[in-house]
Amino acid sequence: MNLPRSLRSLIESFEKLPGIGPKTAQRLAFYLLHVPQEQLDEFAQATQNLKKNTVLCSICFNVAEKDPCPVCSDQNRDKSVICVVEQPLDVLALEKTGSFKGLYHVLHGAISPLNNIGPDELYIEQLIQRITSHIPARLASRLEAGGSPITEVILAMNSNMEGEATAMYIAKQLRELSAISHQPLAITRLGQGLPTGADLEYADEITLSRALEGRKDF
Amino acid sequence: MNLPRSLRSLIESFEKLPGIGPKTAQRLAFYLLHVPQEQLDEFAQATQNLKKNTVLCSICFNVAEKDPCPVCSDQNRDKSVICVVEQPLDVLALEKTGSFKGLYHVLHGAISPLNNIGPDELYIEQLIQRITSHIPARLASRLEAGGSPITEVILAMNSNMEGEATAMYIAKQLRELSAISHQPLAITRLGQGLPTGADLEYADEITLSRALEGRKDF
Repeated sequence: MNLPRSLRSLIESFEKLPGIGPKTAQRLAFYLLHVPQEQLDEFAQATQNLKKNTVLCSICFNVAEKDPCPVCSDQNRDKSVICVVEQPLDVLALEKTGSFKGLYHVLHGAISPLNNIGPDELYIEQLIQRITSHIPARLASRLEAGGSPITEVILAMNSNMEGEATAMYIAKQLRELSAISHQPLAITRLGQGLPTGADLEYADEITLSRALEGRKDF
Repeated sequence: MNLPRSLRSLIESFEKLPGIGPKTAQRLAFYLLHVPQEQLDEFAQATQNLKKNTVLCSICFNVAEKDPCPVCSDQNRDKSVICVVEQPLDVLALEKTGSFKGLYHVLHGAISPLNNIGPDELYIEQLIQRITSHIPARLASRLEAGGSPITEVILAMNSNMEGEATAMYIAKQLRELSAISHQPLAITRLGQGLPTGADLEYADEITLSRALEGRKDF
Protein backbone atom coordinates (compact mmCIF):
# COMPACT_ATOMS: atom_id res chain seq x y z
CA MET A 1 0.00 0.00 0.00
CA ASN A 2 1.30 3.43 -0.91
CA LEU A 3 0.54 6.47 1.20
CA PRO A 4 -1.22 9.41 -0.49
CA ARG A 5 1.31 11.63 -2.24
CA SER A 6 0.58 14.73 -0.16
CA LEU A 7 1.10 12.76 3.04
CA ARG A 8 4.32 11.27 1.70
CA SER A 9 5.77 14.65 0.78
CA LEU A 10 5.02 16.06 4.24
CA ILE A 11 6.64 13.03 5.86
CA GLU A 12 9.71 13.59 3.67
CA SER A 13 9.84 17.25 4.72
CA PHE A 14 9.69 16.29 8.39
CA GLU A 15 12.36 13.64 7.94
CA LYS A 16 14.83 16.29 6.79
CA LEU A 17 14.66 17.98 10.20
CA PRO A 18 17.37 17.13 12.74
CA GLY A 19 16.43 14.53 15.33
CA ILE A 20 13.27 13.48 13.48
CA GLY A 21 13.40 9.94 12.14
CA PRO A 22 11.01 8.18 9.77
CA LYS A 23 8.66 7.03 12.56
CA THR A 24 8.35 10.45 14.18
CA ALA A 25 7.88 12.07 10.76
CA GLN A 26 5.00 9.68 10.06
CA ARG A 27 3.44 10.34 13.45
CA LEU A 28 3.63 14.13 12.99
CA ALA A 29 2.19 14.03 9.47
CA PHE A 30 -0.70 11.79 10.51
CA TYR A 31 -1.34 14.04 13.49
CA LEU A 32 -1.63 17.05 11.20
CA LEU A 33 -4.34 15.24 9.24
CA HIS A 34 -6.62 15.82 12.23
CA VAL A 35 -5.99 19.53 12.80
CA PRO A 36 -8.15 22.27 11.22
CA GLN A 37 -7.03 23.62 7.85
CA GLU A 38 -6.43 27.08 9.42
CA GLN A 39 -3.74 25.65 11.67
CA LEU A 40 -2.10 24.01 8.65
CA ASP A 41 -2.21 27.32 6.77
CA GLU A 42 -0.66 29.12 9.75
CA PHE A 43 2.10 26.53 9.93
CA ALA A 44 2.74 26.81 6.20
CA GLN A 45 2.79 30.60 6.38
CA ALA A 46 5.24 30.59 9.28
CA THR A 47 7.56 28.23 7.40
CA GLN A 48 7.44 30.19 4.19
CA ASN A 49 8.01 33.59 5.81
CA LEU A 50 10.69 32.43 8.22
CA LYS A 51 13.66 33.68 6.27
CA LYS A 52 11.87 36.48 4.44
CA ASN A 53 11.21 38.41 7.64
CA THR A 54 14.54 37.85 9.39
CA VAL A 55 18.02 39.25 8.84
CA LEU A 56 21.42 38.72 10.39
CA CYS A 57 22.50 41.69 12.51
CA SER A 58 25.55 43.19 10.76
CA ILE A 59 27.28 43.77 14.11
CA CYS A 60 26.74 40.59 16.13
CA PHE A 61 25.33 38.28 13.41
CA ASN A 62 22.43 37.22 15.56
CA VAL A 63 19.08 36.52 13.89
CA ALA A 64 16.82 39.56 14.14
CA GLU A 65 13.91 41.36 12.58
CA LYS A 66 15.94 44.45 11.78
CA ASP A 67 19.59 45.41 11.49
CA PRO A 68 21.15 46.23 13.96
CA CYS A 69 19.44 43.82 16.34
CA PRO A 70 17.69 44.98 19.54
CA VAL A 71 20.70 44.04 21.69
CA CYS A 72 23.27 45.89 19.58
CA SER A 73 21.06 48.99 19.30
CA ASP A 74 20.22 49.03 23.03
CA GLN A 75 22.03 52.03 24.59
CA ASN A 76 21.81 50.56 28.09
CA ARG A 77 24.02 47.57 27.36
CA ASP A 78 27.67 47.41 28.34
CA LYS A 79 29.50 47.80 25.04
CA SER A 80 32.90 46.90 26.53
CA VAL A 81 32.12 43.17 26.92
CA ILE A 82 31.46 40.78 24.05
CA CYS A 83 30.20 37.28 24.67
CA VAL A 84 31.05 34.98 21.75
CA VAL A 85 28.63 32.09 21.21
CA GLU A 86 28.14 29.39 18.59
CA GLN A 87 24.43 29.75 17.83
CA PRO A 88 21.55 32.25 18.09
CA LEU A 89 19.89 29.83 20.54
CA ASP A 90 22.85 30.34 22.89
CA VAL A 91 22.10 34.07 22.96
CA LEU A 92 18.53 33.24 23.91
CA ALA A 93 19.69 30.97 26.74
CA LEU A 94 22.09 33.62 28.09
CA GLU A 95 19.48 36.39 27.79
CA LYS A 96 17.05 34.30 29.83
CA THR A 97 19.46 34.31 32.78
CA GLY A 98 19.30 38.12 32.85
CA SER A 99 22.85 38.08 34.25
CA PHE A 100 24.66 39.37 31.19
CA LYS A 101 24.43 43.00 30.16
CA GLY A 102 27.10 43.12 27.45
CA LEU A 103 26.92 42.44 23.72
CA TYR A 104 27.08 39.19 21.78
CA HIS A 105 28.82 37.80 18.74
CA VAL A 106 27.30 34.75 17.03
CA LEU A 107 29.72 32.53 15.12
CA HIS A 108 27.02 30.31 13.56
CA GLY A 109 28.90 27.12 14.26
CA ALA A 110 32.16 25.77 15.62
CA ILE A 111 35.40 24.68 13.98
CA SER A 112 34.93 21.06 12.99
CA PRO A 113 37.42 19.65 10.46
CA LEU A 114 35.43 16.40 10.21
CA ASN A 115 32.45 18.35 8.87
CA ASN A 116 34.60 20.61 6.70
CA ILE A 117 33.95 23.64 8.87
CA GLY A 118 37.07 25.76 9.23
CA PRO A 119 37.48 29.25 10.74
CA ASP A 120 36.56 30.83 7.38
CA GLU A 121 33.08 29.29 7.47
CA LEU A 122 32.34 31.08 10.76
CA TYR A 123 32.04 34.76 11.65
CA ILE A 124 35.47 34.81 13.35
CA GLU A 125 37.07 37.31 10.95
CA GLN A 126 34.17 39.69 11.66
CA LEU A 127 34.74 39.31 15.42
CA ILE A 128 38.41 40.25 15.05
CA GLN A 129 37.50 43.25 12.88
CA ARG A 130 34.86 44.30 15.37
CA ILE A 131 37.39 44.33 18.19
CA THR A 132 40.14 45.92 16.08
CA SER A 133 37.87 48.77 15.10
CA HIS A 134 37.42 49.55 18.78
CA ILE A 135 41.15 49.61 19.56
CA PRO A 136 42.29 53.23 19.18
CA ALA A 137 45.74 53.89 17.72
CA ARG A 138 46.29 56.63 20.29
CA LEU A 139 44.34 57.79 23.28
CA ALA A 140 43.23 60.88 21.37
CA SER A 141 41.42 58.92 18.71
CA ARG A 142 39.66 56.93 21.38
CA LEU A 143 38.17 60.13 22.69
CA GLU A 144 37.35 61.19 19.16
CA ALA A 145 35.55 57.95 18.41
CA GLY A 146 33.55 58.41 21.58
CA GLY A 147 33.04 54.65 21.91
CA SER A 148 34.41 52.71 24.84
CA PRO A 149 36.96 50.09 23.78
CA ILE A 150 36.21 46.42 24.23
CA THR A 151 37.89 45.26 27.43
CA GLU A 152 36.67 41.68 27.75
CA VAL A 153 35.76 38.85 25.42
CA ILE A 154 33.91 35.91 26.97
CA LEU A 155 34.35 32.74 24.93
CA ALA A 156 31.07 30.93 25.63
CA MET A 157 31.39 27.99 23.28
CA ASN A 158 29.85 24.60 23.98
CA SER A 159 31.93 22.44 26.27
CA ASN A 160 32.84 19.82 23.66
CA MET A 161 35.78 19.18 21.35
CA GLU A 162 34.60 21.52 18.57
CA GLY A 163 33.76 24.27 21.05
CA GLU A 164 37.14 23.97 22.79
CA ALA A 165 39.00 24.08 19.46
CA THR A 166 37.07 27.17 18.39
CA ALA A 167 37.71 28.90 21.72
CA MET A 168 41.43 28.11 21.52
CA TYR A 169 41.66 29.41 17.94
CA ILE A 170 39.90 32.68 18.80
CA ALA A 171 41.84 33.14 22.05
CA LYS A 172 45.14 32.84 20.15
CA GLN A 173 44.10 35.49 17.63
CA LEU A 174 42.83 37.82 20.33
CA ARG A 175 46.05 37.51 22.36
CA GLU A 176 48.10 38.44 19.31
CA LEU A 177 45.82 41.37 18.61
CA SER A 178 46.10 42.55 22.19
CA ALA A 179 49.92 42.26 22.10
CA ILE A 180 50.27 44.20 18.83
CA SER A 181 47.95 47.00 19.91
CA HIS A 182 49.33 47.25 23.48
CA GLN A 183 45.71 47.31 24.59
CA PRO A 184 44.78 45.04 27.52
CA LEU A 185 42.02 42.63 26.60
CA ALA A 186 40.65 40.10 29.08
CA ILE A 187 39.84 36.77 27.44
CA THR A 188 37.61 34.68 29.66
CA ARG A 189 35.55 31.53 29.46
CA LEU A 190 32.44 30.29 31.27
CA GLY A 191 32.91 28.63 34.64
CA GLN A 192 33.01 24.85 34.60
CA GLY A 193 31.91 22.43 37.28
CA LEU A 194 28.84 20.66 38.64
CA PRO A 195 25.54 21.88 37.20
CA THR A 196 22.92 22.97 39.75
CA GLY A 197 20.93 20.06 41.11
CA ALA A 198 23.49 17.49 39.97
CA ASP A 199 24.46 14.38 41.91
CA LEU A 200 28.19 14.17 42.58
CA GLU A 201 27.87 10.40 42.25
CA TYR A 202 26.77 10.60 38.61
CA ALA A 203 29.14 13.36 37.45
CA ASP A 204 31.75 12.30 34.89
CA GLU A 205 35.48 12.51 35.68
CA ILE A 206 36.22 15.57 33.56
CA THR A 207 33.37 17.58 35.07
CA LEU A 208 34.44 16.57 38.58
CA SER A 209 38.11 17.38 38.05
CA ARG A 210 37.14 20.78 36.58
CA ALA A 211 34.86 21.38 39.56
CA LEU A 212 37.82 20.62 41.84
CA GLU A 213 40.11 22.97 39.89
CA GLY A 214 37.49 25.70 40.00
CA ARG A 215 36.71 25.39 43.73
CA LYS A 216 35.96 28.55 45.67
CA ASP A 217 36.09 29.74 49.29
CA PHE A 218 32.95 28.83 51.18
CA MET B 1 15.57 39.96 24.05
CA ASN B 2 12.58 39.00 21.91
CA LEU B 3 12.92 36.60 19.02
CA PRO B 4 11.89 37.87 15.57
CA ARG B 5 8.14 37.47 15.07
CA SER B 6 8.42 35.06 12.13
CA LEU B 7 10.72 32.81 14.14
CA ARG B 8 8.38 32.94 17.12
CA SER B 9 5.33 31.96 15.10
CA LEU B 10 7.14 28.98 13.59
CA ILE B 11 8.26 27.88 17.07
CA GLU B 12 4.64 28.12 18.24
CA SER B 13 3.49 26.02 15.29
CA PHE B 14 6.06 23.35 16.09
CA GLU B 15 5.12 23.37 19.77
CA LYS B 16 1.56 22.36 18.89
CA LEU B 17 2.80 19.06 17.47
CA PRO B 18 2.70 15.99 19.72
CA GLY B 19 5.97 15.10 21.44
CA ILE B 20 7.63 18.39 20.53
CA GLY B 21 8.40 20.59 23.50
CA PRO B 22 9.55 24.22 23.59
CA LYS B 23 13.26 23.33 23.31
CA THR B 24 12.84 21.00 20.33
CA ALA B 25 10.55 23.54 18.66
CA GLN B 26 13.26 26.19 19.03
CA ARG B 27 15.92 23.86 17.70
CA LEU B 28 13.83 22.93 14.65
CA ALA B 29 12.93 26.54 13.84
CA PHE B 30 16.55 27.71 14.12
CA TYR B 31 17.63 24.79 11.99
CA LEU B 32 15.20 25.85 9.27
CA LEU B 33 16.84 29.29 9.21
CA HIS B 34 19.82 27.63 7.54
CA VAL B 35 18.02 25.69 4.82
CA PRO B 36 17.43 27.08 1.30
CA GLN B 37 14.15 28.94 0.71
CA GLU B 38 13.06 26.26 -1.81
CA GLN B 39 13.07 23.64 0.93
CA LEU B 40 10.97 25.94 3.13
CA ASP B 41 8.53 26.47 0.27
CA GLU B 42 8.30 22.72 -0.30
CA PHE B 43 7.61 22.17 3.39
CA ALA B 44 4.96 24.90 3.42
CA GLN B 45 3.33 23.49 0.29
CA ALA B 46 3.23 19.98 1.73
CA THR B 47 1.64 21.25 4.93
CA GLN B 48 -0.96 23.34 3.15
CA ASN B 49 -1.99 20.64 0.69
CA LEU B 50 -2.00 17.81 3.19
CA LYS B 51 -5.74 17.69 3.74
CA LYS B 52 -6.73 19.11 0.36
CA ASN B 53 -5.38 16.13 -1.54
CA THR B 54 -6.48 13.36 0.81
CA VAL B 55 -9.86 11.81 1.57
CA LEU B 56 -11.12 9.13 3.93
CA CYS B 57 -12.05 5.94 2.12
CA SER B 58 -15.83 5.53 2.50
CA ILE B 59 -15.46 1.79 3.06
CA CYS B 60 -12.53 1.38 5.48
CA PHE B 61 -12.00 5.03 6.55
CA ASN B 62 -8.29 4.86 5.86
CA VAL B 63 -6.57 8.00 4.56
CA ALA B 64 -6.22 7.82 0.79
CA GLU B 65 -5.86 9.86 -2.38
CA LYS B 66 -9.12 8.59 -3.85
CA ASP B 67 -12.25 6.88 -2.62
CA PRO B 68 -12.34 3.87 -2.37
CA CYS B 69 -8.73 3.43 -1.25
CA PRO B 70 -6.28 1.15 -3.12
CA VAL B 71 -6.76 -1.67 -0.60
CA CYS B 72 -10.58 -1.65 -0.77
CA SER B 73 -10.57 -1.46 -4.57
CA ASP B 74 -7.95 -4.20 -5.00
CA GLN B 75 -9.69 -7.29 -6.46
CA ASN B 76 -6.94 -9.61 -5.25
CA ARG B 77 -7.53 -9.03 -1.55
CA ASP B 78 -9.47 -11.42 0.62
CA LYS B 79 -12.76 -9.62 1.24
CA SER B 80 -13.91 -12.08 3.90
CA VAL B 81 -11.49 -10.86 6.60
CA ILE B 82 -11.53 -7.37 8.15
CA CYS B 83 -8.72 -6.18 10.38
CA VAL B 84 -9.93 -3.39 12.69
CA VAL B 85 -7.21 -0.91 13.73
CA GLU B 86 -7.10 2.35 15.65
CA GLN B 87 -5.09 4.54 13.27
CA PRO B 88 -4.06 4.78 9.59
CA LEU B 89 -0.45 4.27 10.74
CA ASP B 90 -1.43 0.84 12.03
CA VAL B 91 -2.57 -0.09 8.50
CA LEU B 92 0.85 0.98 7.24
CA ALA B 93 2.61 -1.16 9.85
CA LEU B 94 0.49 -4.22 9.03
CA GLU B 95 0.91 -3.71 5.27
CA LYS B 96 4.69 -3.63 5.70
CA THR B 97 4.64 -7.15 7.11
CA GLY B 98 3.09 -8.40 3.85
CA SER B 99 1.37 -11.14 5.91
CA PHE B 100 -2.19 -9.83 5.74
CA LYS B 101 -4.21 -10.03 2.55
CA GLY B 102 -7.63 -9.01 3.87
CA LEU B 103 -9.28 -5.61 4.24
CA TYR B 104 -9.02 -3.01 6.99
CA HIS B 105 -11.29 -0.81 9.04
CA VAL B 106 -9.78 2.28 10.67
CA LEU B 107 -11.56 3.52 13.82
CA HIS B 108 -9.51 6.74 14.11
CA GLY B 109 -9.00 6.37 17.83
CA ALA B 110 -9.92 4.20 20.79
CA ILE B 111 -12.61 4.48 23.45
CA SER B 112 -11.19 6.71 26.17
CA PRO B 113 -13.70 8.14 28.66
CA LEU B 114 -10.98 10.29 30.25
CA ASN B 115 -10.50 12.10 26.95
CA ASN B 116 -14.23 12.22 26.21
CA ILE B 117 -13.94 9.73 23.37
CA GLY B 118 -16.87 7.34 23.36
CA PRO B 119 -17.92 4.76 20.75
CA ASP B 120 -19.84 7.45 18.83
CA GLU B 121 -16.65 9.43 18.17
CA LEU B 122 -15.14 6.44 16.35
CA TYR B 123 -16.10 4.65 13.14
CA ILE B 124 -17.58 1.69 15.05
CA GLU B 125 -21.14 2.13 13.79
CA GLN B 126 -19.80 2.08 10.23
CA LEU B 127 -17.96 -1.18 10.95
CA ILE B 128 -21.15 -2.83 12.19
CA GLN B 129 -23.04 -1.58 9.13
CA ARG B 130 -20.30 -2.82 6.86
CA ILE B 131 -20.54 -6.31 8.33
CA THR B 132 -24.34 -6.28 8.46
CA SER B 133 -24.58 -5.39 4.78
CA HIS B 134 -22.60 -8.53 3.97
CA ILE B 135 -24.80 -10.83 6.02
CA PRO B 136 -27.42 -12.23 3.62
CA ALA B 137 -30.95 -12.75 4.93
CA ARG B 138 -31.21 -15.98 3.01
CA LEU B 139 -28.73 -18.02 1.04
CA ALA B 140 -30.35 -16.91 -2.20
CA SER B 141 -29.63 -13.25 -1.62
CA ARG B 142 -26.01 -14.06 -0.86
CA LEU B 143 -25.72 -15.53 -4.35
CA GLU B 144 -27.54 -12.52 -5.77
CA ALA B 145 -25.20 -10.06 -4.07
CA GLY B 146 -22.24 -11.96 -5.45
CA GLY B 147 -20.03 -10.82 -2.58
CA SER B 148 -18.51 -13.24 -0.14
CA PRO B 149 -19.70 -12.66 3.43
CA ILE B 150 -17.28 -11.50 6.09
CA THR B 151 -16.18 -14.53 8.06
CA GLU B 152 -13.53 -13.08 10.38
CA VAL B 153 -12.92 -9.81 12.16
CA ILE B 154 -9.45 -9.31 13.64
CA LEU B 155 -9.45 -6.78 16.47
CA ALA B 156 -5.95 -5.31 16.16
CA MET B 157 -6.14 -2.55 18.74
CA ASN B 158 -3.16 -1.33 20.72
CA SER B 159 -2.35 -3.47 23.73
CA ASN B 160 -3.29 -0.85 26.33
CA MET B 161 -6.34 -0.04 28.43
CA GLU B 162 -8.09 2.04 25.77
CA GLY B 163 -7.35 -0.54 23.08
CA GLU B 164 -8.65 -3.39 25.24
CA ALA B 165 -11.82 -1.49 26.11
CA THR B 166 -12.46 -0.73 22.43
CA ALA B 167 -11.85 -4.34 21.43
CA MET B 168 -14.20 -5.59 24.15
CA TYR B 169 -16.93 -3.15 23.09
CA ILE B 170 -16.70 -4.14 19.42
CA ALA B 171 -16.47 -7.87 20.19
CA LYS B 172 -19.71 -7.67 22.23
CA GLN B 173 -21.57 -5.95 19.38
CA LEU B 174 -20.24 -8.40 16.81
CA ARG B 175 -21.23 -11.42 18.90
CA GLU B 176 -24.79 -10.11 19.18
CA LEU B 177 -24.87 -9.46 15.45
CA SER B 178 -23.62 -12.96 14.72
CA ALA B 179 -26.21 -14.49 17.08
CA ILE B 180 -29.13 -12.55 15.55
CA SER B 181 -28.17 -13.34 11.96
CA HIS B 182 -27.26 -17.01 12.63
CA GLN B 183 -24.15 -16.36 10.59
CA PRO B 184 -20.86 -17.63 12.07
CA LEU B 185 -18.34 -14.82 12.52
CA ALA B 186 -14.88 -15.45 13.92
CA ILE B 187 -13.73 -12.64 16.21
CA THR B 188 -9.98 -12.82 16.78
CA ARG B 189 -7.23 -10.68 18.27
CA LEU B 190 -3.50 -10.41 17.60
CA GLY B 191 -1.19 -12.86 19.35
CA GLN B 192 0.42 -11.62 22.53
CA GLY B 193 3.77 -12.56 24.04
CA LEU B 194 7.44 -11.73 23.85
CA PRO B 195 8.41 -9.46 20.95
CA THR B 196 11.16 -10.76 18.66
CA GLY B 197 14.63 -10.03 20.04
CA ALA B 198 13.35 -9.40 23.56
CA ASP B 199 15.15 -10.42 26.73
CA LEU B 200 13.01 -12.58 29.00
CA GLU B 201 14.73 -10.90 31.93
CA TYR B 202 13.38 -7.46 31.06
CA ALA B 203 9.85 -8.47 30.03
CA ASP B 204 7.07 -7.20 32.32
CA GLU B 205 4.82 -9.60 34.23
CA ILE B 206 1.75 -9.18 32.04
CA THR B 207 3.69 -9.79 28.82
CA LEU B 208 5.33 -12.86 30.34
CA SER B 209 2.10 -14.33 31.70
CA ARG B 210 0.45 -13.80 28.30
CA ALA B 211 3.42 -15.44 26.61
CA LEU B 212 2.96 -18.41 28.94
CA GLU B 213 -0.78 -18.58 28.22
CA GLY B 214 -0.12 -18.40 24.49
CA ARG B 215 2.63 -21.05 24.42
CA LYS B 216 2.81 -23.37 21.41
CA ASP B 217 4.17 -26.81 20.61
CA PHE B 218 7.82 -26.69 19.67
